[in-house]
Amino acid sequence: VSETSSHHVIKSYEQELHRLRDLIVEMGGLVENQIALATAAVLTQDPVAASSAVEQDPQVDALEREVEQFVIRLLALRQPVADDLRLIFACLKITDDLERIGDYAANIAKRTLALSQGTATISRSALAHMARLVQDGLKKVIDAFSENDAEKAIEVWRDDETIDDIYNAIFRELVTYMMEDPRNISSCAHLLFIAKNLERVGDHATNIAETVYYAVVGEPIADTRPKGDVSAYMTIRPPQ
Amino acid sequence: VSETSSHHVIKSYEQELHRLRDLIVEMGGLVENQIALATAAVLTQDPVAASSAVEQDPQVDALEREVEQFVIRLLALRQPVADDLRLIFACLKITDDLERIGDYAANIAKRTLALSQGTATISRSALAHMARLVQDGLKKVIDAFSENDAEKAIEVWRDDETIDDIYNAIFRELVTYMMEDPRNISSCAHLLFIAKNLERVGDHATNIAETVYYAVVGEPIADTRPKGDVSAYMTIRPPQ
Repeated sequence: VSETSSHHVIKSYEQELHRLRDLIVEMGGLVENQIALATAAVLTQDPVAASSAVEQDPQVDALEREVEQFVIRLLALRQPVADDLRLIFACLKITDDLERIGDYAANIAKRTLALSQGTATISRSALAHMARLVQDGLKKVIDAFSENDAEKAIEVWRDDETIDDIYNAIFRELVTYMMEDPRNISSCAHLLFIAKNLERVGDHATNIAETVYYAVVGEPIADTRPKGDVSAYMTIRPPQ
Repeated sequence: VSETSSHHVIKSYEQELHRLRDLIVEMGGLVENQIALATAAVLTQDPVAASSAVEQDPQVDALEREVEQFVIRLLALRQPVADDLRLIFACLKITDDLERIGDYAANIAKRTLALSQGTATISRSALAHMARLVQDGLKKVIDAFSENDAEKAIEVWRDDETIDDIYNAIFRELVTYMMEDPRNISSCAHLLFIAKNLERVGDHATNIAETVYYAVVGEPIADTRPKGDVSAYMTIRPPQ
């Protein structure tokens, strides 16, 4: 191998790693937008936004497959080690989290149509607040990835607790609404799943934060986080 | 490298791949057991079974990390290609699905404690039926993996539709129970999540089936499956 061609190989390997990073950032932007559309759809009962969120899903899935194929090719042809291998693994894990976030966004959007008119205001401000925090976390963790910023990743990881707190309050609020009026039940059941889906998106952003931290620092985050969703333990009784 | 040591390397590489497969089968058995414990806990309101299911979770997580570390080492040291690379990738994807199934089992188990006594019989037979199908699918897909049986994988993939149908019926049934008596609402909200969690376990078994098929055949399943959970679109009105 001449010096020139060896140089060429190295340069194009770096370009490939760069391209892989770009794919993740592109996919991150797409699911961010999907979440924004889906929550707007629910909050304003907008079926057009709901359809847009659902229709983006195949694009997200296609990007996931592209990342996976890219990684398989990189592993086979470049046989990366150490830092590069860690980055490539990180991309593989992040693409999986992003794909699932896309699924949650589509599921939230689909439920818009099942919410009946009158219930649009139920838990609206709490849901809007939760959705905004989830979107902020998602945007921030993709920034952390693209800037190799371990500190920023930790911030996202810490902030998930607030999202969990809001979710637990919404769970309680929705069950109470159901008890007050049976006409709320069907919509509130969907709102329960919508809130739970947002909570899961927050969890996946937290997973991505852990992955980014590990990719940058080379060690897992040395701290534990309290389990956030305590609603599984809640028993709520109707007023006598 | 002498012939003996080269032979030694090849033999131990095969042993490593075998060990990787064993780890997946072990993890599969563990989450199967977790699902069995969790559903038994819900159906018989057994807090001991519930605790056992929750307490197995760290073991499942530890196995996932072991698989990941094993794969990273294999990729770095053996630089596998073609079939082996596909198998290793499959193991990585399957371990991720299994870890999530373990999470769903733990979440189901936790909700046992929030179900109040009287509601144990609500949707009991449908839930029991659904849980049995989910467990069967999970067992079968792990068998398909360990036997390289693409046909068996396809069967699991097809059977998921039945699970989805039962889930949709349970969703409708639970919302109706809530409307009938506000004292059912809190428990039924948990039962909604329990059923949804089982439905998600079925989806993950389907993912594993796709992964096994791809690892064995080298191509994705050439067929599409209808989206099973249509409950997101359901609006159910209380009787006038």
